[in-house]
Amino acid sequence: MSESKPYVPPKVWTWNSESGGKFANINRPISGATHEKALPSGDHDLQLYSLATPNGVKVTVMLEELLELGISKAEYNAYLVNIMEGDQFSSGFVDINPNSKIPALLDRGTTPPTRVFESGAILLYLAEKFDAFYPKDVATRAECQSWLMWQMGSAPFLGGGFGHFYAYAPEKLEYPIERYTMEVKRQLDVLDKRLAENTYLCGDEYTIADIATFPWYGALVLGHLYDAAEFLDVTSYTHVVRWAEQISERPAVQRGRRVNRVWGPEEEQMAERHSAVDFD
Amino acid sequence: MSESKPYVPPKVWTWNSESGGKFANINRPISGATHEKALPSGDHDLQLYSLATPNGVKVTVMLEELLELGISKAEYNAYLVNIMEGDQFSSGFVDINPNSKIPALLDRGTTPPTRVFESGAILLYLAEKFDAFYPKDVATRAECQSWLMWQMGSAPFLGGGFGHFYAYAPEKLEYPIERYTMEVKRQLDVLDKRLAENTYLCGDEYTIADIATFPWYGALVLGHLYDAAEFLDVTSYTHVVRWAEQISERPAVQRGRRVNRVWGPEEEQMAERHSAVDFD
Repeated sequence: MSESKPYVPPKVWTWNSESGGKFANINRPISGATHEKALPSGDHDLQLYSLATPNGVKVTVMLEELLELGISKAEYNAYLVNIMEGDQFSSGFVDINPNSKIPALLDRGTTPPTRVFESGAILLYLAEKFDAFYPKDVATRAECQSWLMWQMGSAPFLGGGFGHFYAYAPEKLEYPIERYTMEVKRQLDVLDKRLAENTYLCGDEYTIADIATFPWYGALVLGHLYDAAEFLDVTSYTHVVRWAEQISERPAVQRGRRVNRVWGPEEEQMAERHSAVDFD
Repeated sequence: MSESKPYVPPKVWTWNSESGGKFANINRPISGATHEKALPSGDHDLQLYSLATPNGVKVTVMLEELLELGISKAEYNAYLVNIMEGDQFSSGFVDINPNSKIPALLDRGTTPPTRVFESGAILLYLAEKFDAFYPKDVATRAECQSWLMWQMGSAPFLGGGFGHFYAYAPEKLEYPIERYTMEVKRQLDVLDKRLAENTYLCGDEYTIADIATFPWYGALVLGHLYDAAEFLDVTSYTHVVRWAEQISERPAVQRGRRVNRVWGPEEEQMAERHSAVDFD
């Protein structure tokens, strides 16, 4: 790669397996399993295969919130999927998520067991299954669907765009960093205006839209993502900060963010989760 | 901008309104209205404000599919939002979608009227309202939720990533083009393997997951996006091509893709849509 010469894309793209930056070893232009391996499983109906990235944390927070409500059927076994070691390409994982991304859920409480992939889909699935955190009146439900989908369509610009080019790409490129910084600041401003007038994204109720958005934009304004707090001037989004601090105090959130975490302070790590006592 | 000198991001980012490429005039780091202007409205309950980009087409296809089922309450007025002229920053539009992106829907069939934004949310909302294209049995519904969310989280890498850097950015940059090409080809391969074994994304049933995915990945393999068919070797994804051709033959799809279209052959254009006779 040389940015000093003008680049002319070939007529037909071919795979150069040497490009790709920090995640080159796990990025491929083809899908599917690279090796045969069954997934582990435990005692509960719900089997989660994940990692404590923002998308993973959405689901573990949701499950802990359901347990906090006293819904014992939401007990779950959470197994670690180490994406840097290619666990997402095992045959067992690909059977649950053909897209090879965490998180993935298998619900053995149905016959046959039901697979669900994509964090937003798992939130919808659990919300419907346990009738929680998903408003029923039409207007609030529409608002919840809108903000949930806003998060799903916006975070790729934060994670796959800004985070990648600002923190992970092999070389700092001005144009992509400019592009994604502008968009992420616009997104933060959208949230800030909304949270200036509402306790939570959909109004007075804490919903799956907040659960989806907190691990990305909440973590960002709390300074936990990409070492970018100063660059993005995150503290200027005061209403997002208020909302993020409020959510981060919830016991379920404090538990959920530890599950499948294998970095950071040792007391916050927890490779697997099988019952409430794992947090003690 | 010079890619030949190493770029060092500043400590705190500030807005340089000269950067941005083809869409510089409509990209901003702040949200909200830039001018006061009310939205037009028509006779039907459903008021759609949109443009025939892939995200817009999802919703007009959904509405036309509902009408095809004989659901007359799905009649709608579709008004053009010209994003190159900044219509998405009018006070009326921002009231419906604070994120200033098309499509946005106002349902005046509820009291008070309900706003819905984000194409995926509008699909969910309409599917629940009219009880259509959203399976009820747990396994198929979970599959539908998973693929719908897959589309929402994946297409930003196709549109905001690949499309932008391959077709629209002011300069061809090798690293971003490599990155997003690899990801889009992987996504196409995910779809191809799924559609090798299933008629539609969620099995035998045509659902909102197909309606969401067709205007992006279907259009891509049919050669309608970014002039990239040869570069991506789209015809090698034979099962995606089969699925896209099948869907493109549906009368509702042929109508839906014309609504709010103001480019291409004149006979395919239709700035506004107010009733079935507009297609004659």
